[in-house]
Amino acid sequence: MNAGCRFCAIVSGELPATIVLEDEFCVAFLDHRPLFPGHCLLVPRRHVETLPDLGDDLVQPVFSDVRLLSRAVEQAMEAEGTFIAINNKISQSVPHLHVHVIPRRKKDGLKGFFWPRVPYRDAAHLEEVAEKLRAAVNRAWSGD
Amino acid sequence: MNAGCRFCAIVSGELPATIVLEDEFCVAFLDHRPLFPGHCLLVPRRHVETLPDLGDDLVQPVFSDVRLLSRAVEQAMEAEGTFIAINNKISQSVPHLHVHVIPRRKKDGLKGFFWPRVPYRDAAHLEEVAEKLRAAVNRAWSGD
Repeated sequence: MNAGCRFCAIVSGELPATIVLEDEFCVAFLDHRPLFPGHCLLVPRRHVETLPDLGDDLVQPVFSDVRLLSRAVEQAMEAEGTFIAINNKISQSVPHLHVHVIPRRKKDGLKGFFWPRVPYRDAAHLEEVAEKLRAAVNRAWSGD
Repeated sequence: MNAGCRFCAIVSGELPATIVLEDEFCVAFLDHRPLFPGHCLLVPRRHVETLPDLGDDLVQPVFSDVRLLSRAVEQAMEAEGTFIAINNKISQSVPHLHVHVIPRRKKDGLKGFFWPRVPYRDAAHLEEVAEKLRAAVNRAWSGD
């Protein structure tokens, strides 16, 4: 529990929220400013700031619950699909990892999401970016 | 492998892609129409359409790789954060589960993402939605 964290306060029951799922590892509740009704936020009980900070022991419990909630949101809201999103640091309103699970429908007006697009300048630029990424993946794998 | 699936064809090597991560379970490659350079798509090798379809055995391997890739993208692109997103069915261009991992920076122009917002009509509407969600979660837990 992190003093001053709004989501820790929801997990502990100090701050009210409309909870829709809770188990040993996670709590999910309605976003108070939903993109659409049924928009949920799922948080691990343990205070973790971003996805890269999530402990090995929490990957399966958290994302099993995200998977379950995506089924439940689609079914409960009679939606045609869902949108799952995580903001790490930028656009992250509360620095406690939270996964948005949002019902989607055709023509629901959620446009402009993948916009603007910034293309690669040329093939060399693309390859340069790919090389940097491969190097960072290899560093992460080797635990550096 | 699903005949006609573009991402299965990338996994099998039939279709070229700029791959940045591959292991026993997943392949990640550059999106050819990036939101920003460094925008990756991570897919399970096994053909799975949406997150709700992901098998229990793949939750940990896939999301461990998403976590690793989010670290790598932030580091390699010298970004200030990342955006992780999954479109299930609606806005899903290829019906093979893919996780977007996108570098983010302050004032990068990715606005309008959480827009428009559709609020609850009133407290009763909010409670009605929460009840439906709780019921769907309980059904999912009990395996119905």
